[in-house]
Amino acid sequence: MTGRFLSLEGGEGTGKSTQAERLAAALKERGLEVLVTREPGGSDGAEAIRDLLMQGSVGRWSPHSEALLFAAARADHVEKRIRPALGIGTWVICDRYIDSTRAYQGAQGIDDASILALHGFGTKGLLPDRTFLLELPGETASARATGRDGPGADRFAARDSGFHRAVAARFEEIAAAEGDRVRRIDASGSPEQVTGRLVHALDDLLA
Amino acid sequence: MTGRFLSLEGGEGTGKSTQAERLAAALKERGLEVLVTREPGGSDGAEAIRDLLMQGSVGRWSPHSEALLFAAARADHVEKRIRPALGIGTWVICDRYIDSTRAYQGAQGIDDASILALHGFGTKGLLPDRTFLLELPGETASARATGRDGPGADRFAARDSGFHRAVAARFEEIAAAEGDRVRRIDASGSPEQVTGRLVHALDDLLA
Repeated sequence: MTGRFLSLEGGEGTGKSTQAERLAAALKERGLEVLVTREPGGSDGAEAIRDLLMQGSVGRWSPHSEALLFAAARADHVEKRIRPALGIGTWVICDRYIDSTRAYQGAQGIDDASILALHGFGTKGLLPDRTFLLELPGETASARATGRDGPGADRFAARDSGFHRAVAARFEEIAAAEGDRVRRIDASGSPEQVTGRLVHALDDLLA
Repeated sequence: MTGRFLSLEGGEGTGKSTQAERLAAALKERGLEVLVTREPGGSDGAEAIRDLLMQGSVGRWSPHSEALLFAAARADHVEKRIRPALGIGTWVICDRYIDSTRAYQGAQGIDDASILALHGFGTKGLLPDRTFLLELPGETASARATGRDGPGADRFAARDSGFHRAVAARFEEIAAAEGDRVRRIDASGSPEQVTGRLVHALDDLLA
């Protein structure tokens, strides 16, 4: 028995972390073993790389160095935690995964084929069975992220609104091109409502 | 005017660091501006990645994660220090560069084409104008490295002799395939003698 691999994607403040935990609870109620994890990070090595990625000035790393660091962190995370969990039948819910690199580094001019080539090298190209793209109207997401992050915002949250619009556009392109894997989810409303939408969009995998 | 880019390669204990400094002195005597740097590391970001690479247990990173981390560090080093120096006419002497990744990660089963693809992504494929492969008879090198590193040996020096033989074999293959760039240098004898061999092998670039 192999577990299923699910990822949650979207901009800052769309509720990914909250929904990862709520979705895990819903799956456990159905008797499934569930691992909730996040990127960048999720394994000891990847968390050490996360510190390098998230701290410091916005210009600390070039987009190319950044893409390589994300690929290195993801390779470690997949090898040390995600694949072992899936191998024993555990469902894995990951808060951000490869589509975040495609959106955030893509918005800085790194072409998608190169990002996927790095992913192929690092993880043998492991993709989720299903990816949920959580979406809020632009102003709502921006307001939420600002409220949460404040002056302690990390290197990505600290960028300007034009950057975040470009990221959102890349996410939409990925969802349009890979609609079987990537489902767009309306992240507005109560947390209960959003979790309900996620479970509904998993019907076929839960059957 | 563009500076020349030189790298020193070879196993542990072949005298690369000493020769980098001695070669720099010889070039400065000829009126050249010289930057001596080293890998992994050489820029602030790359030094932070170096700490992740060199510390911890031998098995801390998979060969794939390791190759990605080296590529990330090298991308930062090239962008922040090597290219700017070359651009103002400074000669750059780098203690280890891409050929070390090809030898050390290659000896762990990563294919050369993949390593060069990562290098192409991270640095646009910047290669040295000349690379010196410092070589000692196997036992001599092993004895030197053991004497120097002792119990504080890093993750690479700590590996067994079979690994180091595989690394030496990969270095030889690179030198055989790219003889115009890579020159094999006898690293035995006095430091003065070795430096003399390096300068001699630079005659055409110094003309």
